[in-house]
Amino acid sequence: MFEQLGLIGCGLMGGSFALALKKAGLVKRVVGYSKSPTTTARALQMGVIDVEAPSALLAAAGADLVLLAVPVGATEATLKSIKHLVTPEMLIMDVGSTKGDVVQAARHALGNQLASFVPAHPNTGKEVAGVAHADADLYQGAKVILTPTERTLTQHLHKAQALWTALGCEVRVMAPETHDAAFAAISHLPHMLAFAMMQSVMRQEQADAFLSVAGPGFRDFTRIAAGDPKMWRDILLANKAEVLAQAQHFKQAVQAFEDVLQAGNAQALEDLITLASAARAQCRFNQPASAAEPALTA
Amino acid sequence: MFEQLGLIGCGLMGGSFALALKKAGLVKRVVGYSKSPTTTARALQMGVIDVEAPSALLAAAGADLVLLAVPVGATEATLKSIKHLVTPEMLIMDVGSTKGDVVQAARHALGNQLASFVPAHPNTGKEVAGVAHADADLYQGAKVILTPTERTLTQHLHKAQALWTALGCEVRVMAPETHDAAFAAISHLPHMLAFAMMQSVMRQEQADAFLSVAGPGFRDFTRIAAGDPKMWRDILLANKAEVLAQAQHFKQAVQAFEDVLQAGNAQALEDLITLASAARAQCRFNQPASAAEPALTA
Repeated sequence: MFEQLGLIGCGLMGGSFALALKKAGLVKRVVGYSKSPTTTARALQMGVIDVEAPSALLAAAGADLVLLAVPVGATEATLKSIKHLVTPEMLIMDVGSTKGDVVQAARHALGNQLASFVPAHPNTGKEVAGVAHADADLYQGAKVILTPTERTLTQHLHKAQALWTALGCEVRVMAPETHDAAFAAISHLPHMLAFAMMQSVMRQEQADAFLSVAGPGFRDFTRIAAGDPKMWRDILLANKAEVLAQAQHFKQAVQAFEDVLQAGNAQALEDLITLASAARAQCRFNQPASAAEPALTA
Repeated sequence: MFEQLGLIGCGLMGGSFALALKKAGLVKRVVGYSKSPTTTARALQMGVIDVEAPSALLAAAGADLVLLAVPVGATEATLKSIKHLVTPEMLIMDVGSTKGDVVQAARHALGNQLASFVPAHPNTGKEVAGVAHADADLYQGAKVILTPTERTLTQHLHKAQALWTALGCEVRVMAPETHDAAFAAISHLPHMLAFAMMQSVMRQEQADAFLSVAGPGFRDFTRIAAGDPKMWRDILLANKAEVLAQAQHFKQAVQAFEDVLQAGNAQALEDLITLASAARAQCRFNQPASAAEPALTA
């Protein structure tokens, strides 16, 4: 149970976190700050936050739990702006999709206060942004990855694990580097490929005829191509090295398919598909389709 | 209204077609043949077919509507086996995922009887095969592509259009070559890429850690990788030239993303994503998610 959540950023992710915490009875009071006064007003009106703070610093003041739900690029400046009120008892988390850069930003911004910070990435979202879409059940069933820094206190890590678990999440702890490699592989590159698939089709003369017969397979394969351009621009750039490395792995795999197809080697082609199909069948996806569709950050 | 459907192949696609026709009150009697006696017995027991035929020829005998729902590779032999009982009044259709090879097979097998044949591809399915999963609503909302041959009678084409429309489908008429190019772009290549994505991840040392954090985006992006290996081997081989051509388009699109990412060109990256995201947002997918998930051939 937390006394006071300081919510910095009251959009979809932050707003849903406050609602989820309230629904679970895990927080007494939410003090919120948002760069946009319209957002803060709406959050207040919706009951997402109880008190409006005029700055990030004042949202953090007196809180025993602080959530940064701002674009990853704003992490360092935001942490710097609250540093003077960070206490050793305070648990601070973020919700960013990349973690190496967030940890680096936290090291620069927090210095000795780094002990309070537990970098977090809840792998969920929606294709619509903004507090208007905040949803107390957004985190239900989601996988949440925590990437403690070398100076994060174990007690804060444990508090964070307990908190996300209480929200119905499946929690994993990873090194930031492993997180970023994993998400390049299973999220960031797939997004880039879905964008590339749309580009590939739309640039062809018969694009309209092609798209007119697209069915549920194409719909699902390209669903993540509808993601927000600025957000995905930033994620791809933030995780550039890992994304490019995963692109190399992927292109080799595509080449293997092209080679056996070109050679008409039916058995080798079937073998490749069989292994891929079996691997896919073994994947476990906790989040129910209803909660996850349309999801953004997976 | 048809008097008698001759159903050759009583699996998921054929069985669902018979059930849909019955549900819509469009057929009086279904005579079915399946290579597997177990399948035919099950189809009879489920009420998918009313009468069991001992051969494809006898399933077609006396029918005013014949549906071939067999693997595409079996089209020519099957059409040859029924040729002697094909009448000019009979409407014959298939449900194959590729059309150039089907039209070629029909030309070889049917000769003068080609007039009766309307090649059809309903873009729907399930990831589970067999008559046990036959579903009267499988075709509801699906896009169905008809690719009449140069000798198909217009009256048969119109009958086929009316039939699929009555089953709740959205019908398109295309040249077989356009069909195959379109499906290479929006179905066959995406399947190959989904298989390649699984291969790419599973071959890496940290595959288990990567897959353990996969969320709804990866789930949907790779859903079609669970498709049946033999079926997809055959589809990719049957449409090899178009699939390889689409792979070239796609690889160029991926390269464009890699180039701007490598260069750290944020504006160019955002522009590429913006166009892709807008194109995706404009796509129309008729079939409700519930009916289409898990879908196979899209």
